[in-house]
Amino acid sequence: MEYNRITLAVITKLQAIVGEKYVWTDEEKRIPYGRDEGTFTVPLLPDVVVLPETAEELAAVVALANEAVIPVIPRGTGTGLEGGALVDGRGGILVSTERMNRILEINEEAMYMVVEAGVITETIQKEAGKRGLLYAGDPCSGDSCCIGGNGATNAGGNRAVKYGTTRDQIYALEVVTPTGKIAQLGKRLHKMTAGYPLEKIVVGSEGTLGIITQLTIKLVPLPKATAHVLAVFPSAEQALSLVTALPKAGITPTCLEFMDYDVIEVVGAWLDEKQNCPKGGAYMIIQLDSQSDDGLDDDCVAIDDICHTLGAVEVFMADAEKVWKARKAFTEASAADCPVAAMEDFVVPPDKLLPFMTELKSVGEATGVLFRGVSHAGDGNIHLDLLRKGFTDEADECRRIAAFEDKACEAAYRLGGAISGEHGIGQARKALFEKYTDPVELELMKALKRAWDPKGILNPGKIFD
Amino acid sequence: MEYNRITLAVITKLQAIVGEKYVWTDEEKRIPYGRDEGTFTVPLLPDVVVLPETAEELAAVVALANEAVIPVIPRGTGTGLEGGALVDGRGGILVSTERMNRILEINEEAMYMVVEAGVITETIQKEAGKRGLLYAGDPCSGDSCCIGGNGATNAGGNRAVKYGTTRDQIYALEVVTPTGKIAQLGKRLHKMTAGYPLEKIVVGSEGTLGIITQLTIKLVPLPKATAHVLAVFPSAEQALSLVTALPKAGITPTCLEFMDYDVIEVVGAWLDEKQNCPKGGAYMIIQLDSQSDDGLDDDCVAIDDICHTLGAVEVFMADAEKVWKARKAFTEASAADCPVAAMEDFVVPPDKLLPFMTELKSVGEATGVLFRGVSHAGDGNIHLDLLRKGFTDEADECRRIAAFEDKACEAAYRLGGAISGEHGIGQARKALFEKYTDPVELELMKALKRAWDPKGILNPGKIFD
Repeated sequence: MEYNRITLAVITKLQAIVGEKYVWTDEEKRIPYGRDEGTFTVPLLPDVVVLPETAEELAAVVALANEAVIPVIPRGTGTGLEGGALVDGRGGILVSTERMNRILEINEEAMYMVVEAGVITETIQKEAGKRGLLYAGDPCSGDSCCIGGNGATNAGGNRAVKYGTTRDQIYALEVVTPTGKIAQLGKRLHKMTAGYPLEKIVVGSEGTLGIITQLTIKLVPLPKATAHVLAVFPSAEQALSLVTALPKAGITPTCLEFMDYDVIEVVGAWLDEKQNCPKGGAYMIIQLDSQSDDGLDDDCVAIDDICHTLGAVEVFMADAEKVWKARKAFTEASAADCPVAAMEDFVVPPDKLLPFMTELKSVGEATGVLFRGVSHAGDGNIHLDLLRKGFTDEADECRRIAAFEDKACEAAYRLGGAISGEHGIGQARKALFEKYTDPVELELMKALKRAWDPKGILNPGKIFD
Repeated sequence: MEYNRITLAVITKLQAIVGEKYVWTDEEKRIPYGRDEGTFTVPLLPDVVVLPETAEELAAVVALANEAVIPVIPRGTGTGLEGGALVDGRGGILVSTERMNRILEINEEAMYMVVEAGVITETIQKEAGKRGLLYAGDPCSGDSCCIGGNGATNAGGNRAVKYGTTRDQIYALEVVTPTGKIAQLGKRLHKMTAGYPLEKIVVGSEGTLGIITQLTIKLVPLPKATAHVLAVFPSAEQALSLVTALPKAGITPTCLEFMDYDVIEVVGAWLDEKQNCPKGGAYMIIQLDSQSDDGLDDDCVAIDDICHTLGAVEVFMADAEKVWKARKAFTEASAADCPVAAMEDFVVPPDKLLPFMTELKSVGEATGVLFRGVSHAGDGNIHLDLLRKGFTDEADECRRIAAFEDKACEAAYRLGGAISGEHGIGQARKALFEKYTDPVELELMKALKRAWDPKGILNPGKIFD
């Protein structure tokens, strides 16, 4: 696709739409919008940052860009990791939803909330909580990410095993289309067979099919009871067998997190807390919630049984704060121990986690790349930090990291998995995504994108070219 | 769209693909494929019926039809109600999946099944059950419908309140595209953000975006405990208040069925069983399942409390067989009492059921159309039988039924609902669907259809023109 660059005439029109105050061309003001939380080293600067206040303003901006054939890059709070909310070198108009941050309706009786895209996820969680309700979406960056971005990336997080990802929390969307129209997609219904459920594909489309401006999200009653169980296993293999054993026993934890011995050691050193794990062993953190105290007790008894049967050396009700402090310390502890060259987000069917981890070990050995990782084991999602260690120079690092990623990706897809569980493809992963996706499926995706966005102006160069 | 008619040359090519034995042109053999279970009075005969055995054969048939610009109409077992699996007067090749009826894999450990499109839904349920597992999809026509058709229509049914519709039971699909390619859509994953989840829009697309040939479906452990509660209320209003009260209390029944006084009387007469309902009252059937006996007991105690607080005159643990016999007798009992002119399938947000029912009453009075209905109240889905009673002639019936449907549809959409909860649009509902759907949303749907099926050969005239 060929794009035009921003002209003064376009800037003037943008100012007319959103007001002069909200069209930023100063480099200083654009710099923060040239980064996300990924491992990009050089800021990718948009030509202009625009901050609309309403869907109508945003639609007018997109219509203008469509007419002028200029890329539009939608951005929430920039907590992504794969460059999905950054320009890709071809410049363009970065549209931030940060001013669209109102909660429009909270219906306690019918348990839903209508929010603008820029509302911080934690704000939603807290407002729901005050009313005895739960918004079940819970990405790790909840205190800084926004709900529109959660929708655009189909964010996962800490309750996905039981409650699903962001797609599962959404009833309906207001979306600005690539041609600058406002569409109402989805309805607050429990079932419907009336045309194509387009809201389901806009969610997770990383801003390539539409810009989410408003969301109607599901709420559920706050669980009456919660429990955190820590099971210590003598080996990773034994720990991972829990991943299929729990669902098979009819137990659905809110999350099931795996930490191997290496990670436990690094985290222990970072927190200066002795960890109680035999050498070569592993932790499994099992979080549960329920509307029934009795039901939860039944589950905990069953879990204790199952873990011991699978060889656990210790199973105990853990202090929630302590156990999550350890789990969440991983990113910082790992980076403090050794700089991180790349972060991975593979996902495989949960029963394939163990064979996938075995393959990863071989891939690491074959490519000479050191890594460590934690996994949202309950949903088969592994986050790896590839360590900046043992490379001769930058070119060597690039080459060997690329080789690792390619081989690991091949293994993930061969086992029925994918390159990303929750971070998305953005611009950083698209080559591997295109290489390993079913070619017929990929062509259907591209045909859809072309049909909705014939000039390719909406977030170009993301997911695929 | 302009289509070509079948020629002898096309027939010869079809015979070469699937074998002479499986290409039917005799009128006698085609007649059963000219009907579904809806209220169409004249059979809609396809030019030819083709019965492929594999996805490859089916893909070759579609590729041929695409080249020759001839409509292809996919069909499962023909249990639809809206003409979705019938030709629409422009002829074409009807492709039946009935020979694609093998169960390819049952994985008890990872709890999934891989099946061909033509497998009868009940067969899947039974095979799962033998292994202590549940396939949660449960359309009322389960003993005769097939899983591919369930996918094509996103079938709902008797467990949708807790387990969702067919879309929620599906991990992955093999699909023949409108140009005759075979696509693998979706994966057996609990989370993924890697491109657009196309399987979610093929499900429910009524064969307009692709023909489902294989499905990887979720299984869950069979519930350890079930309960059926019958609550008798003095008024429909009180009964319907249960629809929001139960979820608010954190109780998710597998289904929640509403029967009003008129329906109870008709069913009672048909079954010759005295019904225990005060005049003007209503039944609410609450079905529950759980992995925990204690959890289920807690729920039943809470339900008893809630129902009495809402004014129930009687709440008791019901005989499952007896209560379902009454509920399922509705269709037959209603038809025996008075011929049915049309069947409706409106859906609204559950908290809007009561206002919608009030509006329906006004619509009935304004148009002079008598009706009765039962509702899957838990998911806001109302099935109405419009009665063939009180019309002066056929033209009067047509006019007044059309007026009723239009006004009822307007009310459903105004309340945030839709024309179909689970029956689909087919060819019978498309005018109203097009009239009341958000025009921007509708145009996005049509753009997607055109992009994937430029010649419009796959199930033309279904959902929209």
